[in-house]
Amino acid sequence: MTARPTGSSAFADKSAEAPAPSFSRRTLLAGAVGAISATLLNNASALPAQTKGPVPSPPALDDPGKLQGHIPTELGERSPFEHPRRRVNRAAPAGESESPLQELYGTITPADLHFERHHGGVPVIDPARYTLLIHGMVERPLKFTLADLKRFPTVSRVCFIECSGNGYRGFQTTTMKREATPSWIDGLLSTSEWTGVSLATLFREAGVKPDAKWFLAEGSDAAHMTRSIPVEKALDDAIIAYAQNGEAIRPEQGYPARLLLPGWEGNTQVKWIKRIELAKNPFMTREETSKYTDPLANGTARMFSFVMDAKSLITFPAYPDTVSRGWCVITGLAWSGRGKIARVEVTTDGGNAWESAELQPPVLSKCTTRFRHLWKYAGGEAVLMSRAIDETGYVQPTRAQLAAARGEGTFYHMNNIRGWKVERSGKVFFHVEG
Amino acid sequence: MTARPTGSSAFADKSAEAPAPSFSRRTLLAGAVGAISATLLNNASALPAQTKGPVPSPPALDDPGKLQGHIPTELGERSPFEHPRRRVNRAAPAGESESPLQELYGTITPADLHFERHHGGVPVIDPARYTLLIHGMVERPLKFTLADLKRFPTVSRVCFIECSGNGYRGFQTTTMKREATPSWIDGLLSTSEWTGVSLATLFREAGVKPDAKWFLAEGSDAAHMTRSIPVEKALDDAIIAYAQNGEAIRPEQGYPARLLLPGWEGNTQVKWIKRIELAKNPFMTREETSKYTDPLANGTARMFSFVMDAKSLITFPAYPDTVSRGWCVITGLAWSGRGKIARVEVTTDGGNAWESAELQPPVLSKCTTRFRHLWKYAGGEAVLMSRAIDETGYVQPTRAQLAAARGEGTFYHMNNIRGWKVERSGKVFFHVEG
Repeated sequence: MTARPTGSSAFADKSAEAPAPSFSRRTLLAGAVGAISATLLNNASALPAQTKGPVPSPPALDDPGKLQGHIPTELGERSPFEHPRRRVNRAAPAGESESPLQELYGTITPADLHFERHHGGVPVIDPARYTLLIHGMVERPLKFTLADLKRFPTVSRVCFIECSGNGYRGFQTTTMKREATPSWIDGLLSTSEWTGVSLATLFREAGVKPDAKWFLAEGSDAAHMTRSIPVEKALDDAIIAYAQNGEAIRPEQGYPARLLLPGWEGNTQVKWIKRIELAKNPFMTREETSKYTDPLANGTARMFSFVMDAKSLITFPAYPDTVSRGWCVITGLAWSGRGKIARVEVTTDGGNAWESAELQPPVLSKCTTRFRHLWKYAGGEAVLMSRAIDETGYVQPTRAQLAAARGEGTFYHMNNIRGWKVERSGKVFFHVEG
Repeated sequence: MTARPTGSSAFADKSAEAPAPSFSRRTLLAGAVGAISATLLNNASALPAQTKGPVPSPPALDDPGKLQGHIPTELGERSPFEHPRRRVNRAAPAGESESPLQELYGTITPADLHFERHHGGVPVIDPARYTLLIHGMVERPLKFTLADLKRFPTVSRVCFIECSGNGYRGFQTTTMKREATPSWIDGLLSTSEWTGVSLATLFREAGVKPDAKWFLAEGSDAAHMTRSIPVEKALDDAIIAYAQNGEAIRPEQGYPARLLLPGWEGNTQVKWIKRIELAKNPFMTREETSKYTDPLANGTARMFSFVMDAKSLITFPAYPDTVSRGWCVITGLAWSGRGKIARVEVTTDGGNAWESAELQPPVLSKCTTRFRHLWKYAGGEAVLMSRAIDETGYVQPTRAQLAAARGEGTFYHMNNIRGWKVERSGKVFFHVEG
């Protein structure tokens, strides 16, 4: 089932009352006259230095049309006025960096802003020497070069990758704080168009034996990342991906090839993949016995909790924004590892009333979906939250529901409803109900 | 109507016979042993210098797992082994650069590889001083700052932008040559996820008068690019776009805001847009009287040929590739300014037999669609071509059909069927039938 916007006519009615643009007869006239001379010098010194551009750009003018601009180049650069950056978390062992969710538009994450989570750093791999070995319980052990992989039919899909631990800061009371940005809460989430070869195709080549139910995926990094994956997932929608957003996959995302398991926790989607070993049973690697397994309230553990459940986050308004009275377009992202987002509901009164937000088509399976909801802020206090419902009918849980099911000690797969408290001043802070 | 792959089971049968990977017991064993010492020094000198990365990378090793990799960074970099570039055409006045279609995967074009076509160079625009004026036949002339534009509800869509003149080199006999790459033929084509505000929303704000049927769109560049656009298109799907592939629009694509007219010729999608003037009739700008109008065989001219008709191009194999006998996955892009691609047909025998290619979902309206077709090359000569059929039933024409309709003198909107001649040696050259 594909969720569709709730009708553009209803939306149009609302937007007719939407934000009042700044307008006065004076700005209108002033805009028509260009005063360049003095401005030119001022601007030149105010501009950030452009060290990368092969052709130096002229300074910004009141009327840029007064000056011939720079000619085409082999490689584009961002505007000197734009400086999006990942936030590097030096506290995480071997490091992680978060996508700046609050600065992004639509659903695609630019490749150089895709989140990172490494356990042995980013290896440098010569694509000419790269190989992928498939062995174990197969008819024909095979070793593929990158060129071999690229000769097979390609498949592409736009989907999210989310770190298993993403969102724990919005669940655990020890880490929760009011001064939390969207990226600090959920920035280990990014979306790309991935291209590669279907793992099912490679498995047919190797002739996977009927008794082989699991495979080990091993990375080329210094951590020798290894995870056990059911063969069923390989035959469903797994991809050995070598491209990301149209170009070769970036080093931080697994160059020259990674395992892509749409909708599953990031850690299983082994980067720099070099070896796949087929077997009867899971391998019980360190990543499975020591990590990525969820202790439950009753003392047992939830093992192989691969799928990332439905989740959503309002990315605007958010800390440290300040909202002013009038129409405000609440926007954010929703996603589910189990399929398409069916609905996103938004509350602006702390959960008394929930309204369906508009979803931006196309709504794709196991992909982030952008939602938006018009809200007339009348001043005073308000609590904004969102909850995602996916096509399986699963509803994003409250913190209390999640704690009841998993206990307080869990760290991975934290998808509870979160939101933002608007204070009387209009200032916005992170907020978790219950 | 959404075109779907022609059935994965048929495809699976074929791919069971697909490319034979390189495998021998010897390479298998050799791969397991890392000989680092001597290799380390060799690699280090062979590696391209990394001048941009904030953290120096270790050299590529036979076993990269022997060395801790670099830690996360604020901004990612491409692998030192990857150097995609636009081809800059210095011959075009004020310049153009082509997307390297033959090096790209999927459908998204990385922002720094998006094609360029400028008439006064790329202006530098301070977003804090940017304004968009809407005036003329409106109830309320309005001037929007960038912040004003961003307060309205956002819309996103993935679509292509294609230069009106894209593809003329595959039509005009004076420019046609055998040594033509896909980007040389059709590289003024790129696809992005664009985000912005619906122009219809801004028109409602300004109160466009009922008699206003056209508007002038004017850019901030030194060429003062101006085009006349029907109001109907604004009310249909036009967007004032300020974001591209998740981030702020790049300078070469119109930073901080451009007009986006899905499916229409690139020239009308005015970059760095600063002014929109509503009127009864088209403005007959220089771009309409001197350019972007197609002289016809009968001596008249086709004016306001806004829409880019259905088109396709095989991007692999292509000049300068060489194919070897056995299975080969033919792949390419198809697109139509009138809606979705319904079907792509591929011939491998110069047009005697045409078979339906597989389309990669999701097939989006006014967007590039990736197609692929398995072909068993038996050696000898072959002629590969593709033709696109869109959801309106329009079929990409042959060169002869296009010449009969438009004459030999036209330059814009050249969408004739093109392809590739495989010579006895397996070497591939550009080819146009008729």
